[in-house]
Amino acid sequence: MYTANLERMKDKIKTFSQYGDAGHGGITRYSLSPEAVMARNEFKKRMEAIGAKIEVDDVANMYATIPGSDPDAKRIVMASHVDSVRNGGNYDGILGVMSAMEVLETVVEKKIPHKHPLTAMIWTNEEGSLYPPAMMCSGIVCYDYLPEEIRTGFVYDDMMKSKSIIDHTTTFGEALDKSGFKGDKKYRLSPDNYYCYFETHIEQGPILEDNGNDVGVVDCVLGMFNYTLKFYGQTTHAGTFPMPKRRDAFYAASQALIYLHDEIDKLGYPELVYTTGELETHPNVHTCVPDYFEFSFDCRHEDPQVLDKVLAIVKSCADKEWAGCKCEVVKAWNRDTVYWNKTLVSYVKESCEELGVSHQYIHSGAGHDAQFASYVLPATMIFVQSKDGLSHCEPEYSSPEHCTEGASVMLNAVLKVDEKGL
Amino acid sequence: MYTANLERMKDKIKTFSQYGDAGHGGITRYSLSPEAVMARNEFKKRMEAIGAKIEVDDVANMYATIPGSDPDAKRIVMASHVDSVRNGGNYDGILGVMSAMEVLETVVEKKIPHKHPLTAMIWTNEEGSLYPPAMMCSGIVCYDYLPEEIRTGFVYDDMMKSKSIIDHTTTFGEALDKSGFKGDKKYRLSPDNYYCYFETHIEQGPILEDNGNDVGVVDCVLGMFNYTLKFYGQTTHAGTFPMPKRRDAFYAASQALIYLHDEIDKLGYPELVYTTGELETHPNVHTCVPDYFEFSFDCRHEDPQVLDKVLAIVKSCADKEWAGCKCEVVKAWNRDTVYWNKTLVSYVKESCEELGVSHQYIHSGAGHDAQFASYVLPATMIFVQSKDGLSHCEPEYSSPEHCTEGASVMLNAVLKVDEKGL
Repeated sequence: MYTANLERMKDKIKTFSQYGDAGHGGITRYSLSPEAVMARNEFKKRMEAIGAKIEVDDVANMYATIPGSDPDAKRIVMASHVDSVRNGGNYDGILGVMSAMEVLETVVEKKIPHKHPLTAMIWTNEEGSLYPPAMMCSGIVCYDYLPEEIRTGFVYDDMMKSKSIIDHTTTFGEALDKSGFKGDKKYRLSPDNYYCYFETHIEQGPILEDNGNDVGVVDCVLGMFNYTLKFYGQTTHAGTFPMPKRRDAFYAASQALIYLHDEIDKLGYPELVYTTGELETHPNVHTCVPDYFEFSFDCRHEDPQVLDKVLAIVKSCADKEWAGCKCEVVKAWNRDTVYWNKTLVSYVKESCEELGVSHQYIHSGAGHDAQFASYVLPATMIFVQSKDGLSHCEPEYSSPEHCTEGASVMLNAVLKVDEKGL
Repeated sequence: MYTANLERMKDKIKTFSQYGDAGHGGITRYSLSPEAVMARNEFKKRMEAIGAKIEVDDVANMYATIPGSDPDAKRIVMASHVDSVRNGGNYDGILGVMSAMEVLETVVEKKIPHKHPLTAMIWTNEEGSLYPPAMMCSGIVCYDYLPEEIRTGFVYDDMMKSKSIIDHTTTFGEALDKSGFKGDKKYRLSPDNYYCYFETHIEQGPILEDNGNDVGVVDCVLGMFNYTLKFYGQTTHAGTFPMPKRRDAFYAASQALIYLHDEIDKLGYPELVYTTGELETHPNVHTCVPDYFEFSFDCRHEDPQVLDKVLAIVKSCADKEWAGCKCEVVKAWNRDTVYWNKTLVSYVKESCEELGVSHQYIHSGAGHDAQFASYVLPATMIFVQSKDGLSHCEPEYSSPEHCTEGASVMLNAVLKVDEKGL
């Protein structure tokens, strides 16, 4: 067994946390921004220092590769992203890149024998903070979804709409040109020259911490559905319209929300999560009864039958009247559960056991670039414990020890697939 | 008894409905806009045609006055506004101006003897749609509230904040200069030369229609209070955070809203109205649990003791935890019930009886310029039936017959106070 280097990992965490430092504990590092370019240059400098060859594809995905002993073997790639949300933390995304760097650095430093070339990789624009959708460039490379439209400012509306998008006038294509990181399409990740895919990420939830486990052996990304519930009332003046005749869309939506919680909780699935995070109302004036209210409904679980049961409850909202208001239930999008490659998952688990790292199986509730990568390559993920389950915010934290354990687990899993194959 | 002229009233309704015609049944006629200037010119033209003298004060309030037989008598004024909300109706505000014009036109046409000069008046910027606050210029003239700050773009934030304000860069002062209707401060409404005040308005509620009454004898403007309820949770990722540990501010606010309805409705006051019309949430992203939600709470009733009981319930929200979220209850503003002059109210009622117009006593739930006018002059209001109680929207409607009845009632009430005094 080999282990990654705690001090080197600490140094990387400290260094990368400067690029986009927002001054209160986290970072704002939008994709292709000057801050993201600093992180990319740091990656390039450190990878070239160990003799890795740098390649950049046409959407700025970056690849740093060290050769293996077998000239015919395809590359094993470890990837993640360096971009963040606004006022994000120092671990989401970048931990996976630092872990991949750490694996290559350890292999080179310790002269660990391996057949396959090993690649540390940066995906462009995973968060989609300035340029929706999220997971844009893994989508382009592995899923072929509308790259031209995306580059000219296309927003993949049904899939990833968000009213919180920061206003900006630069398109993704313009930012790409300006960044200096637009490379050649021939370098794109492809099954022709890549063998399999790893991604290390923070858990972004409290499960590992609550169970006292440092590392999560991820087995799938949860299936999910997204709907919008719309409530139609009648606006009237706050002072002149008697209560019994009112049709208040906010009151209606509140009743429906309580109903949803009550009915869904009765199903009794402890791993089920559902979120009503995005709201809109009209006219949104304190002297007017709301005539419209909508909220999003995002639901995630591994088992499609469980999702179906929840969906039936959600849809039943449209069969009722809520405070005199009609309700409409509109589908936004859904995805099936994506299972990781079972052999790769078993290598991750064996590595944890052999290293003596406390671990457990876990599902990924969030989406990751690994999902799209899994369309073209055998793929898996490794989770590192998050403090208090917080993510996408400045208190986001994983200890250097846990981060280094994650890198050690990935290193040994990579060496297993390098030796034993899939 | 004298009666107003139905055909002349119809002609005025038709004419004024063109100024700001939004093409789908209503108008958008912001204060001091080109559309409002057209309405003011129509007012001026028609009033000059009956020999009225036009005066304009320093904030563009317009006065059209016909003389009375007593050279020492102060003026009796009938006022309202010509500005509207966005996509408003053809009656809110303008009906009061048309009724005042109709009274003067009838008096001149029928040579009705009267001692006091009679004034038809336009208040500037009652709605505050482009330039908050609402009732700005009656506030300036009768209540002396911060006129300089208002003219240079001041927003009376605590009192009349609204997140729905249309973006614009012109200040009220600039619009005033540009309108050509900035006159002299010496013409302001004042107890030195005005005797009493009338305002006719549409009801903006369904009470008259439901009771089969054409006209409302308004006795007061309801007392009210405005609070904001704020809920503080914790944002987490939609996919990664187990339900029992979540602190969802939207779910918290929904529970509190249901509680408020349940508890307040138990009090059993049929005339009580309360409205939660203005909402805000954060971060408002469909993949994030909301960590913040606030809603406004507007409550109106004649009796301050009833308002106190409701306020106690509202404040009790801060003593509880809602879905793990803390709640804060913050005062925005309040006002006491404003009672109209009892003699003027009795003249309005007598006029209804003598004219055979179906009527009832009614409270005003909405605020009106008459409130501020009542600080300096004996004042009262007359309501005209609204169809379906709708207002501030394009389907807003009052029949020409009811509008003419309202003008007849005001005419005879004016003649009563002219003859018998207060």
